[in-house]
Amino acid sequence: MSPRNAAGRIVDSNPFTVVVVATIALNAVVLGLQTYEGVEDRWGRLLDGLNAACLAVFLVELGVRIASYWPRPWLYFRNGWNVFDFVVVVAAFIPGIRQNSTLLRLVRLLRIVRLVRVLPDLRVLLLGVWRSVPPLASIAAVTVMILFVYGMVGWVLFGDELPDQWGNIGRAMLTLFVMLTLEDFPVYMAEAMEVMPWAWVYFVSFILLAAFIVLNVLIGIVLNSMEEARELERRQALRDRHGARGLSGPVDPEAHAHVAERIVILRRALDDLELELALDSDPRDGAR
Amino acid sequence: MSPRNAAGRIVDSNPFTVVVVATIALNAVVLGLQTYEGVEDRWGRLLDGLNAACLAVFLVELGVRIASYWPRPWLYFRNGWNVFDFVVVVAAFIPGIRQNSTLLRLVRLLRIVRLVRVLPDLRVLLLGVWRSVPPLASIAAVTVMILFVYGMVGWVLFGDELPDQWGNIGRAMLTLFVMLTLEDFPVYMAEAMEVMPWAWVYFVSFILLAAFIVLNVLIGIVLNSMEEARELERRQALRDRHGARGLSGPVDPEAHAHVAERIVILRRALDDLELELALDSDPRDGAR
Amino acid sequence: MSPRNAAGRIVDSNPFTVVVVATIALNAVVLGLQTYEGVEDRWGRLLDGLNAACLAVFLVELGVRIASYWPRPWLYFRNGWNVFDFVVVVAAFIPGIRQNSTLLRLVRLLRIVRLVRVLPDLRVLLLGVWRSVPPLASIAAVTVMILFVYGMVGWVLFGDELPDQWGNIGRAMLTLFVMLTLEDFPVYMAEAMEVMPWAWVYFVSFILLAAFIVLNVLIGIVLNSMEEARELERRQALRDRHGARGLSGPVDPEAHAHVAERIVILRRALDDLELELALDSDPRDGAR
Amino acid sequence: MSPRNAAGRIVDSNPFTVVVVATIALNAVVLGLQTYEGVEDRWGRLLDGLNAACLAVFLVELGVRIASYWPRPWLYFRNGWNVFDFVVVVAAFIPGIRQNSTLLRLVRLLRIVRLVRVLPDLRVLLLGVWRSVPPLASIAAVTVMILFVYGMVGWVLFGDELPDQWGNIGRAMLTLFVMLTLEDFPVYMAEAMEVMPWAWVYFVSFILLAAFIVLNVLIGIVLNSMEEARELERRQALRDRHGARGLSGPVDPEAHAHVAERIVILRRALDDLELELALDSDPRDGAR
Repeated sequence: MSPRNAAGRIVDSNPFTVVVVATIALNAVVLGLQTYEGVEDRWGRLLDGLNAACLAVFLVELGVRIASYWPRPWLYFRNGWNVFDFVVVVAAFIPGIRQNSTLLRLVRLLRIVRLVRVLPDLRVLLLGVWRSVPPLASIAAVTVMILFVYGMVGWVLFGDELPDQWGNIGRAMLTLFVMLTLEDFPVYMAEAMEVMPWAWVYFVSFILLAAFIVLNVLIGIVLNSMEEARELERRQALRDRHGARGLSGPVDPEAHAHVAERIVILRRALDDLELELALDSDPRDGAR
Repeated sequence: MSPRNAAGRIVDSNPFTVVVVATIALNAVVLGLQTYEGVEDRWGRLLDGLNAACLAVFLVELGVRIASYWPRPWLYFRNGWNVFDFVVVVAAFIPGIRQNSTLLRLVRLLRIVRLVRVLPDLRVLLLGVWRSVPPLASIAAVTVMILFVYGMVGWVLFGDELPDQWGNIGRAMLTLFVMLTLEDFPVYMAEAMEVMPWAWVYFVSFILLAAFIVLNVLIGIVLNSMEEARELERRQALRDRHGARGLSGPVDPEAHAHVAERIVILRRALDDLELELALDSDPRDGAR
Repeated sequence: MSPRNAAGRIVDSNPFTVVVVATIALNAVVLGLQTYEGVEDRWGRLLDGLNAACLAVFLVELGVRIASYWPRPWLYFRNGWNVFDFVVVVAAFIPGIRQNSTLLRLVRLLRIVRLVRVLPDLRVLLLGVWRSVPPLASIAAVTVMILFVYGMVGWVLFGDELPDQWGNIGRAMLTLFVMLTLEDFPVYMAEAMEVMPWAWVYFVSFILLAAFIVLNVLIGIVLNSMEEARELERRQALRDRHGARGLSGPVDPEAHAHVAERIVILRRALDDLELELALDSDPRDGAR
Repeated sequence: MSPRNAAGRIVDSNPFTVVVVATIALNAVVLGLQTYEGVEDRWGRLLDGLNAACLAVFLVELGVRIASYWPRPWLYFRNGWNVFDFVVVVAAFIPGIRQNSTLLRLVRLLRIVRLVRVLPDLRVLLLGVWRSVPPLASIAAVTVMILFVYGMVGWVLFGDELPDQWGNIGRAMLTLFVMLTLEDFPVYMAEAMEVMPWAWVYFVSFILLAAFIVLNVLIGIVLNSMEEARELERRQALRDRHGARGLSGPVDPEAHAHVAERIVILRRALDDLELELALDSDPRDGAR
């Protein structure tokens, strides 16, 4: 998004972002107030007016953003976020949506979600969360499999007597998902133990296994993302220090060549050292 | 708070702190006992007397603290904690507060909170907790936004049938906050599934998202502060060792110059090495 | 499992795994649908047919796997997973199992569990979880002992008045296990406090102790396994870099001998340094 | 506990520990079975006999342990665990205790707790847990203070209308402790919001604050102990490697002196480097 004109400079300016964020916040407050019947009855027209005003601001924002791509405004639509913006703002003018109150509400709600698009911090944060999802694939598969297997067993054991919780695989898996959060687990266990006194084995084993795996997953993800964040910071710090040192080093040029040579030697030696420490290999191996 | 006189030495002395902490503890016990009706009926006058005695001790404490700033006692009020102390202790003598039992209770309670002010450990701890709040700003914004969006959706979906939980955005967000703690989530889900069989998608997705984000936040903060604490300790340890070594080194002065020169070389080499390890850059890059 | 023939190449091929995983997934869906009475009534025959088809695919799979060991097919049974496969697939043809619907269901369910055997990722994951169990032995013993001791005390204190929760050591330990998950703990405490007003000491101490120990265990395991995973990654990265460097190093052979010598010296010096840092020993100690 | 005679060798032998642990386990099973009324009615005499047999084994164990201190058996009582053993085993013969069934049960239960004394792993584990308690002192003080302050506020706000939960400071603090575990928090909040619609501010703020602090504490402890454990392992590994290398080093004696000198230089350089990295100080500072 390299701005090429006056509109581009406006889009990149701080006041523009502040105005847009404030309008989104106002719009959210208005939408929230409309859910209170008393408020809606009394101030409904004012709230509708504010809603329209916010929409007007968003339209102007949209216009400025598109103008910032002048003289090739169609490039605006090459960015997914821009398309999202456009659809959400323009949708309110499509006849079919204006009449359907549920769709209109949805569109209005999506305008609030644009906050993520406007605030770069949120975008970074959500991207970070999003990136931590893929490593979950295999553990999610294990969890679903455990839910399925325990669900089938639960359906066989308690399906006839407790159809509300265990009547089919869907209900059984939902019951087990609830127990993954440890909620209501004593209730389900007590019910099941009336049907079958040994049911506690099923529940206790599930709780131990599930809690174990769930914790493994969640804390694993968190530690992983923390680790990444720290790594980023460390690199940044090193780059900063290296840059600063390079500009104001106390070593004269003559020494420099000597230093450079030794650095190669040292670096290699330390690489090997680290390798050896890690692999616990024979010393001669590393010095090869 | 550099003490300049006898009062200052008293303020900094151990017995002074012990007496003040003990008085605060006694005052807390008295306030606690006053909440028991039987005790209040029987020993009410004694408890009132003890309360007054504690207040007297606090007045003396206040006097000594102000005196420690002699000959410029007004400097006492330049410290926020001191102002808090003064207000809390003196407030009991303002006529309007004496008559209003709720205000009086509040003032008495704030005298207990002075414990934080008196015990340096607590102050450090709370400052640490306080410092860990700012990094939360953006994730708090995300959480509020998620609560808002899910709250609006919940209001649209269940608002008419379940007004107690989803009747307006305020109630819906409170319900969702409760579910953030995983409490009562099966209850709300069961209610909603009677209204709309597919409601479980809404609840399960919220639980997964919310639990994920909440855990991210809390553990992130904790790890961060742990990291900071460990970093502090490590620096302290290094500084201690360096200081001790500097005084009793086995290397004579002549060797010292040579050592110093090599240190510069080594340090630079290791800096580069670390940079290279971190950036995975080309070796020539680092040796530049 | 080094494939020696055409069957072996098929077993190791991607399409083979995809087909088997897809069949397992289809089989799981079929088994799940059979738990819905409406679906079973209407589509029962189709589902039975699909079940049979899945079984046929598994039989073919089994045949190919065994054929991959040709000309010594009996070696197939030297691997525990293979035996599991064989038993689970062939069991459906044993007369006693075909007639017993519960056993048949169990066998069908175990065919789904074969997913773990087919997907290597899951196998690695479960092995990791499995390896984290042994370090738990001693803490599990402590937890059981705490449950036993608190269970006995609870039985003595509340056994007569609240037989449902505390009537014998089994029930008392189950109640305490439920409280380990913090579920229903206020309910049990309220009941017990009606019997004995000081019961809260028992419950609060148990909660503090149990939550503390449980958290210790779970987070301990998780951190441990994270640490192991990171260590593995680090070694892999080092090995990769070392290998790559070794092939394209900028240092000529003559310098190499010199480098190797210095590496020995440096490595030793750093080993000692690290040892000294760790043991805080006297310098002369390390230089010995 | 350096064994000086045959009894000492027995005490240190594996079979001795196995027999004692097995007897304790048997005793635990017997005590557990005695809590089942049906079992007690039918097999009561057998269980009493087994109890007596276990006690006999413990008496023999006690005798052997004391004998291992021969010829100065009184030294046995210098160890706290030994005194605990003695009291627990001998108490069963004190007339007052034999008659009092509750005391007798307690003594029998304490015999099970001796498991900790017999298994060294458990002892190490519990010592570790015990050592992690002191750093909790100040945060425990903060938590108690928060409970007290919130309890007083809760008593003022809801004490009259909801005496069961908030009737006095004790009940209010117990209610808040329950909410620390997040249990029943929606119930208390719903009750309080009927009394006072704005009560949710009180509850939501408490939950945020409390959950935050509790997590801080627990995870902090856990990370701390993990760190300590890893540090111990690392030192052990270093010591092992250093010892092994020292015995079979490939460097000849002549090179050794040279190496030692360079080690001093290197170590110092790296110390400084680490210090500089940590303190971000000026380079000349470190090279002084």
